[in-house]
Amino acid sequence: MKKIFSILLILMVLFSCKEKIEIKEINTAVHDLVDPLPSWNDVNSKQNIIDYVEDITNVGSTNFIQIPDRIAVFDNDGNLWSEQPAYFQLFFAIDKVKEMATEHPEWKTQQPFKAVLENDMTELAKQGEHGLIQLVMATHAGVTTDGFDADVKNWIAKAKHPTKNVGFDELVYQPMLELLQYLRANDFKTYVVSGGGVDFMRAFVTEIYGIPEEQIIGSRIKTAFDYNNGNPVIKRLPELDFIDDKEGKPLNIQKIIGKKPVFSSGNSDGDLQMMQWTASNKLKSFMLYVHHTDSIREWAYDINSHIGRLDKGLNEANEKGWTVIDMKNDWKVIYPFELDAN
Amino acid sequence: MKKIFSILLILMVLFSCKEKIEIKEINTAVHDLVDPLPSWNDVNSKQNIIDYVEDITNVGSTNFIQIPDRIAVFDNDGNLWSEQPAYFQLFFAIDKVKEMATEHPEWKTQQPFKAVLENDMTELAKQGEHGLIQLVMATHAGVTTDGFDADVKNWIAKAKHPTKNVGFDELVYQPMLELLQYLRANDFKTYVVSGGGVDFMRAFVTEIYGIPEEQIIGSRIKTAFDYNNGNPVIKRLPELDFIDDKEGKPLNIQKIIGKKPVFSSGNSDGDLQMMQWTASNKLKSFMLYVHHTDSIREWAYDINSHIGRLDKGLNEANEKGWTVIDMKNDWKVIYPFELDAN
Repeated sequence: MKKIFSILLILMVLFSCKEKIEIKEINTAVHDLVDPLPSWNDVNSKQNIIDYVEDITNVGSTNFIQIPDRIAVFDNDGNLWSEQPAYFQLFFAIDKVKEMATEHPEWKTQQPFKAVLENDMTELAKQGEHGLIQLVMATHAGVTTDGFDADVKNWIAKAKHPTKNVGFDELVYQPMLELLQYLRANDFKTYVVSGGGVDFMRAFVTEIYGIPEEQIIGSRIKTAFDYNNGNPVIKRLPELDFIDDKEGKPLNIQKIIGKKPVFSSGNSDGDLQMMQWTASNKLKSFMLYVHHTDSIREWAYDINSHIGRLDKGLNEANEKGWTVIDMKNDWKVIYPFELDAN
Repeated sequence: MKKIFSILLILMVLFSCKEKIEIKEINTAVHDLVDPLPSWNDVNSKQNIIDYVEDITNVGSTNFIQIPDRIAVFDNDGNLWSEQPAYFQLFFAIDKVKEMATEHPEWKTQQPFKAVLENDMTELAKQGEHGLIQLVMATHAGVTTDGFDADVKNWIAKAKHPTKNVGFDELVYQPMLELLQYLRANDFKTYVVSGGGVDFMRAFVTEIYGIPEEQIIGSRIKTAFDYNNGNPVIKRLPELDFIDDKEGKPLNIQKIIGKKPVFSSGNSDGDLQMMQWTASNKLKSFMLYVHHTDSIREWAYDINSHIGRLDKGLNEANEKGWTVIDMKNDWKVIYPFELDAN
């Protein structure tokens, strides 16, 4: 009997070890079976991404990349969410001008505010970049950082997209959410690097994208510290500090992240320098362009668009063999709410 | 016999579960037994830190802080490493001027370079802030980011501190390395927020501190992107971009991290605004000042020092009950190499 117990004791230890091995094997099997990008059709763009990730995470590969170097950067407007008929941040500025109008009777006769209050988008467009900056400064400055954060949160809770008639935060791309998740599951650190305002984005995208505030990079206005009798605040000033677009993107990546990304994703010529910077990494890198080709489910635009123009970027992508997503053909769904309908 | 096997099978399952529970219990016991801050004497500062960390990581505590909000910020010069008789970065600039002097014969007669080449520190001090900025621009700009990184790495591999006669990278504070590690073990994200140059620090402190490049924040000079015929580089320009000191610290924290820290550590009045900003967090926060009191093992200085002056900060710390480290009495060793001697 003692002998049997001894054997069983040994078996128990073995069983305990074997159990662990089996769990590991099951995990690996599940990993192989579960599609990491289920909203993508079986297309080249999807296969290229998976091939890249499997290569650089394989310790046996000559292209293996250490975890701290797995930096992935994503443009936001037109890349993680829609940007038509205008950048979502402009709708915030427009709604905010209307809300603030009672305190500013002078806006009734003063451009670009007059155009906004009269819903005259043609006139607003005529006001050009200078007009836009005036709108941004009137609605994004003159408050504390906490105050602005609350302004954006209040807005996003109610605002609806003018044609899609859903919240702006619902107009994120489901296939890109899956890509962000897939990269993080493979120990990439995912960043947003956008021309949009950094504090506008931080107010509500961290949960949607699963990206913390400190990994959101964007354009900024200047700020000032106020000790405020022991209740310190940071005030937002009506002056541009940094435009995170074109050359600004690699410059900001170097300033804030301090190392070159290995994975870069964008949709416009404004992302081209970020792509070039990533492509110059000595480690194996991946450049991904989103091409807006779906006029039914989203919008179709490229070389002639006033927003998110994609011209030089597309040429360089084709020339250098970067991966280009054809939204219409590559993606099963565009937005998360379409999943429920399926 | 079948019955015995059945019972033993049940026992095996129980054993397997119990084993896990036991491992957990052992881990907890080890956690309680192992001193997380072994180079600290049993002093108030140490106990305050441990009490704070145990409180805010306890899910049952009303002060519990979610992991994404566990942001800890550390000044560098005089807080994580020594800063006497001058900031270490100045020694880099001086050595670099001497190295570059053959290409700049005009420096023989031109201040502040003349003073550097003649080792005339009294004259160099007379050149004041303007002189220092000239030294920094001559040695930190006019190269690419990669080139500067290589410059600093080459320097740190050989340079010795003028009086301690060890590498500058050996003059980090062992007790603070333990504190960084202890906070990270409790899911804090640790940041350096220093008046020193961000790219100077990034070139060699990430390994020493266990802090990745993207969690090092500092002063910056301006940069420019150059496509360089398909081999893009970022050039360092001889112009200040941002001084990460005093009000600059909370401003940069908000710009880059985007949320308020809960733990802040510094050693000079230049850290006071960062402390005040952290103290204003609605979550329970911890403010820690290093007071340089050890004239034998390190240096003793505070209100009258030309470097790392601690005056208002010390008053405010005492007034508000922030924790102050008395280096002489609180720390068993100052530098890691003293551990080997023990």
